[in-house]
Amino acid sequence: MGHTDSVNTRAPLTRREQKERTRVALLDAALRLLERKSFGSLGLREVAREAGVVPTAFYRHFDSMEELGLALIDDSFRTLRRMIRDARAQDLAFEHVIRDSVEILVRHVHAHRLHFRFVARERSSGMPVLRQAIRAEIRLFSSELATDLARFPFLDRWSTEDLGVLATLIVNTMVSTAEEIVDAPSGGQQLEREIVRRAEKQLLLIALGVPQWRSSGAEAPDVS
Amino acid sequence: MGHTDSVNTRAPLTRREQKERTRVALLDAALRLLERKSFGSLGLREVAREAGVVPTAFYRHFDSMEELGLALIDDSFRTLRRMIRDARAQDLAFEHVIRDSVEILVRHVHAHRLHFRFVARERSSGMPVLRQAIRAEIRLFSSELATDLARFPFLDRWSTEDLGVLATLIVNTMVSTAEEIVDAPSGGQQLEREIVRRAEKQLLLIALGVPQWRSSGAEAPDVS
Repeated sequence: MGHTDSVNTRAPLTRREQKERTRVALLDAALRLLERKSFGSLGLREVAREAGVVPTAFYRHFDSMEELGLALIDDSFRTLRRMIRDARAQDLAFEHVIRDSVEILVRHVHAHRLHFRFVARERSSGMPVLRQAIRAEIRLFSSELATDLARFPFLDRWSTEDLGVLATLIVNTMVSTAEEIVDAPSGGQQLEREIVRRAEKQLLLIALGVPQWRSSGAEAPDVS
Repeated sequence: MGHTDSVNTRAPLTRREQKERTRVALLDAALRLLERKSFGSLGLREVAREAGVVPTAFYRHFDSMEELGLALIDDSFRTLRRMIRDARAQDLAFEHVIRDSVEILVRHVHAHRLHFRFVARERSSGMPVLRQAIRAEIRLFSSELATDLARFPFLDRWSTEDLGVLATLIVNTMVSTAEEIVDAPSGGQQLEREIVRRAEKQLLLIALGVPQWRSSGAEAPDVS
């Protein structure tokens, strides 16, 4: 937004910029409305009205509400990926990795509250297309984390399947934590500190199990 | 259902039995409809029609749709508590506790699929009253599990807070597993086996961390 390769940045908006601006306005309007209702009950006209455009303008940007929903999921996970990239760039020290990861998560949940709320709700909502898109993004997210984890001590010898097990457990813990933070009443800082503390302890407990794990490659370990 | 203290069980239904039967019909009708839509978009007339009663009959059982929703949550968690009671009654051997617990969960998800699906969806849905009721039930569930855990080796010396951390981690893992099973396409037995295997491994990894944990009672452990 507002970022352009054009030389004369003071010129009136080009058609393309204007179009992008309306697209963003529609997405933002939908996000605002979704704070109070589920995606399934959201109407195209309602979104257009909230964005201040006529309903026909909607179709110049999205073929359907479903396509707008998928664009919102895209945006939401782009912020999540940026979050992970930030974490990687900081090259977290092993001994602080848990606290720093939770801190990054909390910061991003606050910065992108509406996106997180939307994803949290639609992850198990009635619209199969959105639900599946969100699940697919979370799986992709877990699989990227598994790759990262393979660089840590002990984990470099784990099988791909077991790295996936660990990554999914971490991602699920992070997802629950994000959902609790999004759902906490605003100003509930004591509650948020408790949520954060519990998340850190949960991740520490998971980490403590890692050196004890006997990852046996292709062979199934005995989990009975 | 069909269970009564009356001596002559072949007699025509009493008024009370008839009333209970209609109540159950309304709850079942709502559950069936909720397979395809969210609670927020479900109408009272629609539920009455599906149950085969006139809309005014609805009010003899529930003051509002919200009250019906809360009754569904009550029923859902009653089946969950029965599941836990079964597990306790079996007095699971320590070395099989993970596999047996996951097996009990899978069996109950299949037996009460509609209840699980309803809870999974409304847990993060737009209706605050239902969402809060579900969260409260899950918290209660975690706190009961924490009490059970205190009887296991190592855990008998853990602080209440840390038992809560562990219980929440286990419950979150079970909730994710149940949601994945409910969402798996029917007949996807290979997928279900993978979900179960991953759940078992996740719980094993958590269990492996337990003997390594240094629970320090009132004092905060260093999680940095």
